[in-house]
Amino acid sequence: MTAIRAMFFDVFGTLVDWRTGVAREAKRVLQPLGYNLDWTAFADAWRGEYQPGMEEVRSGRIPFSKLDILHRRNLERFLPRFNVRDLPDDVLRELTRAWHRLDAWPDVPPALGRLSKTFLLAPVSNGNISLMVDLARRNDFRWDAILGAEVAGDYKPKPRVYLAACEAFDLKPAECMMVAAHSSDLAAAAACGLRTGHIARLDEHGPGTGEPKPTVPVDVAAADLNDLAGKVGA
Amino acid sequence: MTAIRAMFFDVFGTLVDWRTGVAREAKRVLQPLGYNLDWTAFADAWRGEYQPGMEEVRSGRIPFSKLDILHRRNLERFLPRFNVRDLPDDVLRELTRAWHRLDAWPDVPPALGRLSKTFLLAPVSNGNISLMVDLARRNDFRWDAILGAEVAGDYKPKPRVYLAACEAFDLKPAECMMVAAHSSDLAAAAACGLRTGHIARLDEHGPGTGEPKPTVPVDVAAADLNDLAGKVGA
Repeated sequence: MTAIRAMFFDVFGTLVDWRTGVAREAKRVLQPLGYNLDWTAFADAWRGEYQPGMEEVRSGRIPFSKLDILHRRNLERFLPRFNVRDLPDDVLRELTRAWHRLDAWPDVPPALGRLSKTFLLAPVSNGNISLMVDLARRNDFRWDAILGAEVAGDYKPKPRVYLAACEAFDLKPAECMMVAAHSSDLAAAAACGLRTGHIARLDEHGPGTGEPKPTVPVDVAAADLNDLAGKVGA
Repeated sequence: MTAIRAMFFDVFGTLVDWRTGVAREAKRVLQPLGYNLDWTAFADAWRGEYQPGMEEVRSGRIPFSKLDILHRRNLERFLPRFNVRDLPDDVLRELTRAWHRLDAWPDVPPALGRLSKTFLLAPVSNGNISLMVDLARRNDFRWDAILGAEVAGDYKPKPRVYLAACEAFDLKPAECMMVAAHSSDLAAAAACGLRTGHIARLDEHGPGTGEPKPTVPVDVAAADLNDLAGKVGA
């Protein structure tokens, strides 16, 4: 069996709690302007535009645009549903940066430190480089490189994103493990020849909403990132 | 005056001593095969093919190829001059990886640690991502991201390389400082609107061969990277 040399990570949901963080940041920005919204529903509505926004790029309808750009466009799409209208540009920009200010699930920073002793580590996220850099600074993630959508010029689950990450590290797909809390991400990585590790994030979309187990075959299924580190021998 | 938010670094010559390292690695690989060469001349000959190799990409004569590929091709070009012929592929590959095993000038690791408290840091080198990752692991460079030629799809001093680095961090060129031991690199960065910092590396091509001072206007000229850190307030 080929030795694993690198571990690639999905970020939103797998490493960071986007829902609580976006709700907190939206409240921080909008409440002083007089808005009292269901902040969690606000976060869910924003995330609801995520896949449709990226699909415009994946399908070739629009050229590649980094996720910050899509987040901003998606924000303007759903704001009227919350009766929020005519926000000034600087407020829209500050809101969009909510995604740069998310907190890691508590197991993540120590487990990444442990994994980095054995493996090369990189995010392979749909988030853009500056977004990954800000999350890394905030949460003390030590990455060897920032890989993923912006480097590949397309969005997961397109094969190019996984394969570009392997190529950037000069590794064969079988030497790389994709780690995610989402079976669809892992199925796409496995189809490219990568190894796969599933993390259960039960509370991603609210208590008990996450995948407790992968719904596709994976190499490793783990309760959290420390559990995964143990199972891959780190 | 716009505050500096990120510092970008040239790597070969500026942060790492390629000449001593390549000579050492070439000796390590080739001496056991019976070759006794002038190892420093070997390193210089390899580096001599560097700009012509990249110029084939910059001019559009060949599509972008990562520096490891160019290093391998350049190696095969100059080896006959040393009467080295018919090396097996695995030896050529191991030799090419000499560039992944270079040591930092001694001031670099602590100064980068100091600078990282104030600025985002990234290499903006012509070296490819895996090469930068290996040098970072070897020398304990803490990068926020690996930027440079492979991410931009072209080679310095083409403007795209500097501008792609600024864009990856969502920064204006005036918020970014390019640091290098080579005035030509700094002139190209300045033409793109970046700030510039010059480091004197007197021994890059052998004792007393480096630029003691920049030959173009720069924002900061420093004796080494700690001196530069002090001068930019880190």
